[in-house]
Amino acid sequence: MNSHELLMVKGRILDAQRVLVISHIRPDGDAIGSLLGLGLALMDIGKDVTMVSEDGTPACYKHLPDHELVVKRPEGEYDLIVVVDCSDLSRTGKALKGYAQPDLNIDHHVTNLYYAKMNLVDPSAVATAEMLAEYLPQWGMTITHAIADVLLTGMITDTLGFRTSNVTPSALRIAASLMEMGANLSDLYNLALKNKSYEAMRLWGSGLSNLERNGPLVWTSLSLVDRLAAGYSGRDDADLINVLSSIDGALISIIFVEQPNHSVKVSWRAQQGVDISQIALQFGGGGHPAAAGAELDGSLESVRNKVLEETYKLLEIHTPLHI
Amino acid sequence: MNSHELLMVKGRILDAQRVLVISHIRPDGDAIGSLLGLGLALMDIGKDVTMVSEDGTPACYKHLPDHELVVKRPEGEYDLIVVVDCSDLSRTGKALKGYAQPDLNIDHHVTNLYYAKMNLVDPSAVATAEMLAEYLPQWGMTITHAIADVLLTGMITDTLGFRTSNVTPSALRIAASLMEMGANLSDLYNLALKNKSYEAMRLWGSGLSNLERNGPLVWTSLSLVDRLAAGYSGRDDADLINVLSSIDGALISIIFVEQPNHSVKVSWRAQQGVDISQIALQFGGGGHPAAAGAELDGSLESVRNKVLEETYKLLEIHTPLHI
Repeated sequence: MNSHELLMVKGRILDAQRVLVISHIRPDGDAIGSLLGLGLALMDIGKDVTMVSEDGTPACYKHLPDHELVVKRPEGEYDLIVVVDCSDLSRTGKALKGYAQPDLNIDHHVTNLYYAKMNLVDPSAVATAEMLAEYLPQWGMTITHAIADVLLTGMITDTLGFRTSNVTPSALRIAASLMEMGANLSDLYNLALKNKSYEAMRLWGSGLSNLERNGPLVWTSLSLVDRLAAGYSGRDDADLINVLSSIDGALISIIFVEQPNHSVKVSWRAQQGVDISQIALQFGGGGHPAAAGAELDGSLESVRNKVLEETYKLLEIHTPLHI
Repeated sequence: MNSHELLMVKGRILDAQRVLVISHIRPDGDAIGSLLGLGLALMDIGKDVTMVSEDGTPACYKHLPDHELVVKRPEGEYDLIVVVDCSDLSRTGKALKGYAQPDLNIDHHVTNLYYAKMNLVDPSAVATAEMLAEYLPQWGMTITHAIADVLLTGMITDTLGFRTSNVTPSALRIAASLMEMGANLSDLYNLALKNKSYEAMRLWGSGLSNLERNGPLVWTSLSLVDRLAAGYSGRDDADLINVLSSIDGALISIIFVEQPNHSVKVSWRAQQGVDISQIALQFGGGGHPAAAGAELDGSLESVRNKVLEETYKLLEIHTPLHI
């Protein structure tokens, strides 16, 4: 990001009084962490801030400071609308319906569509939270203990504890600074990533029992019946995709999660050297080369067949000898 | 460490020609990483180096550069004997029998016994490898790509990927520097800690599908049939016990693994404040308060009933209100 752009954004932020900050539906740690990080910093300099996450704050982030300030809908008029951690505007859900084009888009996804008036997009950052940890001080805001906690949580969750292939020396140094501002890396890691619910582990049981492999491709499905049997209340994969992506020799791993509305949520993970974001994009989703997702209409079986077919095509290019 | 001490050590190192570097028996990543890190650095400045690990290099570290130079026994005379990552001398095994008192002891364990002529002990370091990453340049040695790989591996393994509570900002900054010297954090993490076999994950599927809970007690069983169905060749639980022990509210977790000889291997894990080693002992096994095991004769069902009954008794003491 060049300093001129950052200065312009700073001016725009300082001029505003009523600010809306919004992140994406089905929020992960970076969505909630970035939302709270920017929101709290703006409140600390006296702004009137609404923080919106259409699906609220997931239970696994309820330990984060001030998460109860996050609401599901904006209300009234705003001088400044900031979208964080969203590659495209539809990822904010329906909350922005009736509002003007967002003023500012802060995101680290390489697939970002530059939908706002000002767009700060840095795909070299491991998380939007990393970008904010750099920008906030440049914008004259202070990273308090609470803000350090939420930003480090965003970095930890998007990197699975600093172990994804996009982690840079600079990300580690920013994490070190956030620790010095009061964030406890080990506690935040355990709270956000390690502890699992009994129901989530029963869901993993279903998913891993149905595990399939074809050469460098590993996949599984979670049906509505599996979810019911496990007693799992979420509509996600309970992070099972991270287990799949750590299987020896799994160049690409995929999870298909059946949704109640006759659609299927698909998550891809890929090892370095393989870019699955294009497949996700092709199916109306998005993400990074190493981690992407999409939601497709259709039955579990039909979506699985369609997606596996396209994924095979990609693998044939990358590993013709393994198929 | 004060600079005078480090300067004295530097002088002693530079004066030596034949150097023995040795680490501890049953080596972990920090033992092997520190051994190779110092050994390779000394070789690079022209020393005649023997690197000793009495138990050799475990399979999970065979990806480390130059690991094949590690031998099981010292041979002949040395001008300088350096022990790395050992809190007491007996941890080196029998390899130093007949040799004089070691010259140098480099270690990060708080329990270190200062057994050498010169002792560099820094309990604030997350790994002996972290200390070496700081010292080597001060001693005029270069951290090459290979040395960065082995030292970062030592830091990763001793901190389980930077998530133990002793990780400091300075450890993260040193890790960042090692990345800049060529070490690939993500690859090294995956190679040393993360990767699981497809068969092991199918076995997890069976175990997690059969997961049961009664208040603060969580358990599952792996039968011979489960193992056969998963194609898993080991007779262990493929580390599934670690998943069980991270379940929210699981004060005690247990896995029962059926063995071919009409016996059952039992593993317990307990949260802080509960001591399950006594139950294991009672069944002829052993271990620590937080992690213990035993092997019992009998069918899966009979062993499970017997063990659950005894474990309940313990829990009644600790959590009378939850049962």
